[in-house]
Amino acid sequence: MTYDHYFRSAIDRLHTENRYRVFCDLERLAGRFPHALHHADGAAREVVMWCSNDYLGMGQHPVVVSALMETAERMGAGAGGTRNIAGNNHPLVMLEAELADLHGKEAGLAFTSGFVSNEAAISTIAKLLPDCLILSDELNHASMIAGTRHSGCEKVIFRHNDLDHLEELLKAAGRDRAKLIAFESVYSMDGDVSPIGAICDLAERHNAMTYLDEVHAVGMYGARGGGIAERDGVMSRVDVIEGTLAKAFGVIGGYVTGKRDVIDAIRSYAPGFIFTTALPPAIAAAAQASVRHLKTSDIERKAQQDRVAATKAALVARRLPLMANDTHIVPLLVGDPAKAKAATDRLLDKHRIYVQPINYPTVPRGTERLRITPTPFHDDALVDALVDALEEVWTALELPRTKDRAAA
Amino acid sequence: MTYDHYFRSAIDRLHTENRYRVFCDLERLAGRFPHALHHADGAAREVVMWCSNDYLGMGQHPVVVSALMETAERMGAGAGGTRNIAGNNHPLVMLEAELADLHGKEAGLAFTSGFVSNEAAISTIAKLLPDCLILSDELNHASMIAGTRHSGCEKVIFRHNDLDHLEELLKAAGRDRAKLIAFESVYSMDGDVSPIGAICDLAERHNAMTYLDEVHAVGMYGARGGGIAERDGVMSRVDVIEGTLAKAFGVIGGYVTGKRDVIDAIRSYAPGFIFTTALPPAIAAAAQASVRHLKTSDIERKAQQDRVAATKAALVARRLPLMANDTHIVPLLVGDPAKAKAATDRLLDKHRIYVQPINYPTVPRGTERLRITPTPFHDDALVDALVDALEEVWTALELPRTKDRAAA
Repeated sequence: MTYDHYFRSAIDRLHTENRYRVFCDLERLAGRFPHALHHADGAAREVVMWCSNDYLGMGQHPVVVSALMETAERMGAGAGGTRNIAGNNHPLVMLEAELADLHGKEAGLAFTSGFVSNEAAISTIAKLLPDCLILSDELNHASMIAGTRHSGCEKVIFRHNDLDHLEELLKAAGRDRAKLIAFESVYSMDGDVSPIGAICDLAERHNAMTYLDEVHAVGMYGARGGGIAERDGVMSRVDVIEGTLAKAFGVIGGYVTGKRDVIDAIRSYAPGFIFTTALPPAIAAAAQASVRHLKTSDIERKAQQDRVAATKAALVARRLPLMANDTHIVPLLVGDPAKAKAATDRLLDKHRIYVQPINYPTVPRGTERLRITPTPFHDDALVDALVDALEEVWTALELPRTKDRAAA
Repeated sequence: MTYDHYFRSAIDRLHTENRYRVFCDLERLAGRFPHALHHADGAAREVVMWCSNDYLGMGQHPVVVSALMETAERMGAGAGGTRNIAGNNHPLVMLEAELADLHGKEAGLAFTSGFVSNEAAISTIAKLLPDCLILSDELNHASMIAGTRHSGCEKVIFRHNDLDHLEELLKAAGRDRAKLIAFESVYSMDGDVSPIGAICDLAERHNAMTYLDEVHAVGMYGARGGGIAERDGVMSRVDVIEGTLAKAFGVIGGYVTGKRDVIDAIRSYAPGFIFTTALPPAIAAAAQASVRHLKTSDIERKAQQDRVAATKAALVARRLPLMANDTHIVPLLVGDPAKAKAATDRLLDKHRIYVQPINYPTVPRGTERLRITPTPFHDDALVDALVDALEEVWTALELPRTKDRAAA
């Protein structure tokens, strides 16, 4: 075909901009997380993972792994069909009830991924509301942007976590127009948190619906792992809460929870839900085991918070440029895509530490960073090894320190 | 909130049109497929599934289930991140090489679902081609329609499998314009097959790219399960072949295969691929085991074809209105949504046979049907029980027979 050059030049553009992504071929080791094998050049050597979103290490928890194995043995591998045609397996029905309970909602609905849950739910909700205006935080995730775009509805962007700007836009839209406020609780790249209660105040005052993405919070915040909205005591005020089963819960899949009719409407109208094979029973059972476990166990949450605090303190002590925040996300600013890549290459090659560089379009240009995610399994020795390695890399590559930046 | 009535009325519309979907709560039994438990009203009773897309029963095959269990035990439950950030697990890398080999292509790329693979690949390919025109078969799946729509490119619909119409549209577009022909091999609701070779002839003559969805054919057709394109000896002529791991391969996930640069461009530009957690290692290992097995084992394919032939013959012998085709799909025309639902309710309640009614929007109104999928595990006794049950239901509900329809 004569189309080859279009694809070739699309790839060349990424190389030129230093944002061509090379995937790191990894083999996780259950029971030894965060240790993993890194496959390269036909060999495998052990590395320590410092950028996984398996935030609590639940991916290797015995209750999760054994639920997965036991259910696979009993029910087989796949679901065998869409939710409507033969694929609606019993563990998935149980999982959805567990998720509705987690968020104190009437109903839950599981999707093959968090991306699909946002895309399908936002686009469907907005389409079902006449002349809906979507008010979207400027830092919303790509999946929420996809849902907004695919709704075909008008959207306005409010400045990140800016209540005054949001209220201005709500007022301008008028009380009678259908309005959907779409936002996140923990923003995953900076680790900052939205004022959920205050946004609900605005929503009530101006008659808007609220849609909250808690993917980087579920399992980790709130007494039962219900997320920031649970921690802040405002869960019942949010109309739709979306979450993931793939991060703190350690499995795969996404979900939404809310009033019965809202969830039933998404179930009934969203093509991305209707026309896709259901999650396998073993995956649903593993996810349910994880959610259920974290409703009553606080050990993992407390241990994670402890390890996050230790890691942040160690970075600050070395004047490594931590981007401060109050959550479990530990971003380290580099500010240049080639240097971010060079730093992580050196961490991996020389120190056997795996951190992925985060470049555009995941973060804005000029804010390229390393994103470090401490888990309950990153003990003091691993934290020490990390900061020693970063020290060496920062010095070797002459990357900016905290004081340098403040002085600049 | 004051939005409740919008969702309520959306659901009411479905009830009014007899197309509100009630999911059947099922518990598969590995080793006993197609037998399963049906949960309802707090009890579970055994039923026989006749509408699963686990076409070959690979979902319970020991090589598949044991790969899943063994890998979960060794590597844990989830992947722990996106492909770029910590989630690129070794079994997934191996799976993609297996899939590229299956279709004789340079590269493969796995997605969380077949829906996502079509949405992401079609939209990304078309966006990367300047002023691309998408030529789309009128019966293409919802996921291909989503990909087409989300590309933002112009599209034209050609009449189903109509080569003259397709050529007319290609000519009208002109040789110099970028053109992508998107079509399927086996159309899943009618079971008819597209003339892949002849479409490739047209593509070559008029300088178009070809994108082929083989989700209802992979594993089942061709000497190694490469699909209809392999069976017809035209696999190398198709630019991009898309498939699923969730039907004949019995697991979950979707994929595309093609030239290295095309696949790399999709990998690098598709939001639905980039911003989503990778498939779990255990799922990837199970899928690879299934694909690998079906490359050399013909037993499952031959047995399925035998069972399909036996089922079709039994239906014809009773004058039950089989919609004839040359594939493994066995559609039985009812032509009315309420009657289709009544028929399947009666099959389930009275005969413990589970077939889902297929109504609009999955099929056009007026062509509502039962869609029966014989597998290697539907033996003569089960086929006999099925046609006896259908006989009873067809008589009780006074549904049309073959001769009635011909006479009408």
